[in-house]
Amino acid sequence: MSNKPILHTSLSPALLHLFDVGNSIVVIIDVLRATSTIATALYNGAKCIIPVDSVSRCMEIGRQIESITAGERDGQIAEGLEYGNSPFEYPREFIEGKTLVLTTTNGTRLLHMALEKGAKEIITGSFPNLSSVCDHLVEMKQNVILGCAAWKDRINIEDTLFAGAVISRIKKHFSINCDSSHIAESMYEKGKKDLFSFLKKNDASHYHRLMNYGLEEDIRYCLAAEGANVLPVYKEGKLVVK
Amino acid sequence: MSNKPILHTSLSPALLHLFDVGNSIVVIIDVLRATSTIATALYNGAKCIIPVDSVSRCMEIGRQIESITAGERDGQIAEGLEYGNSPFEYPREFIEGKTLVLTTTNGTRLLHMALEKGAKEIITGSFPNLSSVCDHLVEMKQNVILGCAAWKDRINIEDTLFAGAVISRIKKHFSINCDSSHIAESMYEKGKKDLFSFLKKNDASHYHRLMNYGLEEDIRYCLAAEGANVLPVYKEGKLVVK
Repeated sequence: MSNKPILHTSLSPALLHLFDVGNSIVVIIDVLRATSTIATALYNGAKCIIPVDSVSRCMEIGRQIESITAGERDGQIAEGLEYGNSPFEYPREFIEGKTLVLTTTNGTRLLHMALEKGAKEIITGSFPNLSSVCDHLVEMKQNVILGCAAWKDRINIEDTLFAGAVISRIKKHFSINCDSSHIAESMYEKGKKDLFSFLKKNDASHYHRLMNYGLEEDIRYCLAAEGANVLPVYKEGKLVVK
Repeated sequence: MSNKPILHTSLSPALLHLFDVGNSIVVIIDVLRATSTIATALYNGAKCIIPVDSVSRCMEIGRQIESITAGERDGQIAEGLEYGNSPFEYPREFIEGKTLVLTTTNGTRLLHMALEKGAKEIITGSFPNLSSVCDHLVEMKQNVILGCAAWKDRINIEDTLFAGAVISRIKKHFSINCDSSHIAESMYEKGKKDLFSFLKKNDASHYHRLMNYGLEEDIRYCLAAEGANVLPVYKEGKLVVK
């Protein structure tokens, strides 16, 4: 029998209950664009990021503590907030040393689900911090759940691809008896030469949504590995660099 | 705007609630082996098939009506039943004119979910009856949900591949804004040259389970198109040929 830790992939928050969250590190994956922006802001020196699930909660915290409030609805900065969801809005000269309160519906909901189910540790993953995530998971030697944030519980291609990228890199260190993981890896292997074209060719719904908002550069950045190699870990309501 | 009907893929029963079941034809997909065996038995002249979700219910119906009771647990014919889940057990000389009561945990559960949600029509799909399913869906011009039965709500590769095969054939007749459908089609396109090798290479959990029971020929049959081209439709508790 293998003594390797176990890795599973949950392709939607609606499937998270199938896995043993309480004995696992959970990686929250929301590639376009929440977890990419989180990695980027922390990489650029943000003190911490407070993920919240609504605009009103974001505004409330913004009134309570010195912070930057950010979030979008339908491609526009949400009314009452100051900044948007693009990683390009958070360069070092702007975000260093500051607290960012970020609304992210799908990612925050999944994070709270993992928290309630007693995950051993919660980290966030995206292509910009792919290596940091992989190195950490290999080092920890714990069971892992790659948790795709999806879109209102509907599976999406880009989060699945990121799960596949992680699996492709670290699979020899884990026992993987999970078809969702194999599907994700197979997809990633098929698309990895050009993830942008893969999203386009496969008619990914978020690809279309963001392209319609003129955000091609955001998509390209969020699909490129290693732009912001930090490890965001959730501690007492905040994402900080581990 | 397109006037084409809409097609979605539900990769697990736990995701079915995301889709508009009440306005759709639902295709129940349980490739290894329930829906393959259902198509085969009906193709070979079975009068009807009564899908049930437990061995005890199967035995109960077997006592009430003249029928053949069938089902497996852990690769063996379940205690109290007469036959197993293999399509090879139901040749014409045996099954013609008879009623088959078949236990199928995942497929039956999904079927009942679709029924409760008021699906317009419920049919079953598998590679052996791929063409019948595709022809029917194109002809009906209704919204479609490809419903993978999965395994205790965990997504599996073989049901996903069948959804992909259907999409690959009929996509031009439908409006498909659904990443799960695109994932399924992409997987199928990658694996279609040799589905058996694809399952093996991607470590599909059911592939291993059935191979361990010595059922390679069952797998090969269940992955081959057109062996049993009938359209099983659910009517008043029974699957019959439409």
